[in-house]
Amino acid sequence: MPASPANDPSLRSWIDIRPTDDFPIQNLPFGVMEVPEWGPRLAVAIGGYALDLYACAQLGYFEAIGDDVPALGAAMPKVFRRRSLNAFLRLGRPAWQAVRERVSELLRHDNPSLRDNELAISTCLLRQRDVTLLRPVKPTSYVDFYSSLEHAMNVGVMFRPDNPLLPNWRHLPIAYHGRANSIVVSGTSIKRPQGQYRPAGQDEPVFGPTQQLDFELEMAFIVGQGTAQGNTVPLAQAEDHIFGLVLFNDWSARDIQSWEYQPLGPFLGKNFASSVSPWVVTLDALEPFRVAGPAQAPQPLTYLQNTDNQHFDIQLDVLIQPAGATTEPLVISHSNTRHLYWSMAQQLTHHASNGCPLDAGDIYASGTISGPTPGALGSLLEMTQRGTQPLNLPGGLQLGFLRDGDTVILRGYAEREGVRIGLGEVRGTVLPAAE
Amino acid sequence: MPASPANDPSLRSWIDIRPTDDFPIQNLPFGVMEVPEWGPRLAVAIGGYALDLYACAQLGYFEAIGDDVPALGAAMPKVFRRRSLNAFLRLGRPAWQAVRERVSELLRHDNPSLRDNELAISTCLLRQRDVTLLRPVKPTSYVDFYSSLEHAMNVGVMFRPDNPLLPNWRHLPIAYHGRANSIVVSGTSIKRPQGQYRPAGQDEPVFGPTQQLDFELEMAFIVGQGTAQGNTVPLAQAEDHIFGLVLFNDWSARDIQSWEYQPLGPFLGKNFASSVSPWVVTLDALEPFRVAGPAQAPQPLTYLQNTDNQHFDIQLDVLIQPAGATTEPLVISHSNTRHLYWSMAQQLTHHASNGCPLDAGDIYASGTISGPTPGALGSLLEMTQRGTQPLNLPGGLQLGFLRDGDTVILRGYAEREGVRIGLGEVRGTVLPAAE
Repeated sequence: MPASPANDPSLRSWIDIRPTDDFPIQNLPFGVMEVPEWGPRLAVAIGGYALDLYACAQLGYFEAIGDDVPALGAAMPKVFRRRSLNAFLRLGRPAWQAVRERVSELLRHDNPSLRDNELAISTCLLRQRDVTLLRPVKPTSYVDFYSSLEHAMNVGVMFRPDNPLLPNWRHLPIAYHGRANSIVVSGTSIKRPQGQYRPAGQDEPVFGPTQQLDFELEMAFIVGQGTAQGNTVPLAQAEDHIFGLVLFNDWSARDIQSWEYQPLGPFLGKNFASSVSPWVVTLDALEPFRVAGPAQAPQPLTYLQNTDNQHFDIQLDVLIQPAGATTEPLVISHSNTRHLYWSMAQQLTHHASNGCPLDAGDIYASGTISGPTPGALGSLLEMTQRGTQPLNLPGGLQLGFLRDGDTVILRGYAEREGVRIGLGEVRGTVLPAAE
Repeated sequence: MPASPANDPSLRSWIDIRPTDDFPIQNLPFGVMEVPEWGPRLAVAIGGYALDLYACAQLGYFEAIGDDVPALGAAMPKVFRRRSLNAFLRLGRPAWQAVRERVSELLRHDNPSLRDNELAISTCLLRQRDVTLLRPVKPTSYVDFYSSLEHAMNVGVMFRPDNPLLPNWRHLPIAYHGRANSIVVSGTSIKRPQGQYRPAGQDEPVFGPTQQLDFELEMAFIVGQGTAQGNTVPLAQAEDHIFGLVLFNDWSARDIQSWEYQPLGPFLGKNFASSVSPWVVTLDALEPFRVAGPAQAPQPLTYLQNTDNQHFDIQLDVLIQPAGATTEPLVISHSNTRHLYWSMAQQLTHHASNGCPLDAGDIYASGTISGPTPGALGSLLEMTQRGTQPLNLPGGLQLGFLRDGDTVILRGYAEREGVRIGLGEVRGTVLPAAE
């Protein structure tokens, strides 16, 4: 993709941004907020604020881009007063880019048009802490890939010691369909699921609250423009269909999962809930952070052969705030999306290779992102060897799997030339199982 | 459920119905039709006709039931002018039952109110051949179970001769999430998918059109009222959430499936397309066809223990019309939903047992329904031993897997006391792969 003027590292905003903020003027991620009495609004994050796109459109700030991109012009302002980004996504990349670049202009330190209009600012600019951030999309499909070689090996060794990596793994990005309607936004608490599992050493299963509740550190991409059933997507065009990225926690009940998953894959061990971060960071904003992925051997079949830099260098942290703890959350893992073996573009092209239709708002998660070092593991399953080697946390606390009241926080950010493009965070606290 | 007056076997309609018709007055299944220039309409099938529910509501025929069921009264007539049944389903069983019973009254041979109103008839009653039947629901989730013991054994013997039935199978209804947005209505042609598969005797995969395209004979239930995330559904209340049943063809590319499916289950081998019949036959209409299911041993855990007749006696036929054939389609298999080991109620209760939310319009398919005899197999995979023992069809034709131009037709019906409650049919023709 061509460089966007909105990515210029020298840009500054008239809004005060600290160097550690996730949302400087070079980022401008999209989300959906609910404002008391106003209903849902599409928004762009800037520092600790949310810019109300509906109010901006109503005040005429988007008139010129509406003329430049007729589909956007026809859809405004209504497209910004929705409960999800979906309708906006269907307008396509020219619309997303036009809005992001226009918002960048409006927020530049040297542009007085919004900066010096106090009345407009009071209408358009809300503190994020005064609004409710909603799940940014209404997905019709959610797919979870399995694209970290390290994760696949770590799990494979535990479940199939003789045969950890199956022969298909290096030939195609393995994936399964998950549950779209149980995906919740960051901050939603997660009720401990109940289910069937077979306690160690027993022949018969029991039913009850999971004893092995885990998180999974993942990133997910959001499909912008979909495809028609029967169509395919060449690898070189795959990124045209990707709007942006979110952090993704694929909560997992390991005991339920391991009892049920053969032969058709994970089901109730996963589908009770997944959590996403509220701000979708665009591929446009991540453009400066492209890197080459790991060497792929054997070389994939032609339709998956990649010569471009289709990976991204995004740092990822996992933090735990144990139940009852009043101290700051504790970093227990540090990974990076560049460790993924398969790129998002390869995932999308493979997915569409059989003609399966993709829809705007679909969520495609990476699978657990584990890196090559012991400090870069993306799940408690891996960190604790399925609970047998608990983490030693301060205060003498030993953590095997998640306990009621524990909070898990995933954070992500890319940094270069003093510019930090943050993903924000996704957090969730474990609630006790139903009575 | 209590017996409905609409199920009375002695009822007759003023519309002429032949004894072999699937849609007598005791059936009254719901669907969605598109009428040229009128847009989408909810409809009820009667004989070869479709009754336009929107027109009925506008002409005042539903006024009394709108008073009786206030949620229905508030939603009419708009709820009948939708592209899917979803909004109607969310109104709940009292609304579905009120409409079905009122339609039954209107169509009784001795009720003159519609029968003798030629103008109203010309507005409300359309020949099915003059309208386009649409996919009846917009599913947010599609799940495929694996609930036929015979099918699980037949497939298990092929893929895992030492270990055909995994230890979990008799303890819970195994299932996986499939692709909701590639489900199409009967009559839609199916483009042969391409994908990765590993030819027999080779180490390396290739990419190309599937060589092992198959159908699967399934039934699916449609969720009427959903559940909130975190809630569960006791077995005794499971059927309250089920609106009705459709025929379901889960098209499968066996070569793609067997290469990709480990360890996370089927993905591109299945998600290119599934087909549903257009008319949803209500559980209310199927009430007279309840039967006990097979004995379950070992006894399931408490939450899945079933003492009622929660299975249904529905005959199922698979027909093939080979490419180029001008003769009538040929029946190649005959099965019955009563063969299923797990009931729909058990499937739904198990699915909700971890708090996973269910939505109106969700589609839950049974898995391939194979019976205990060689003539009751539900897939070519089973009938031909994965293509090695092709079917001998008239004219010297040998059928291993599906060829371009072949048409597959699934039909279903329940019969008792001279009343036939038909499911109609789901059909699809195979088109060549993309260039």
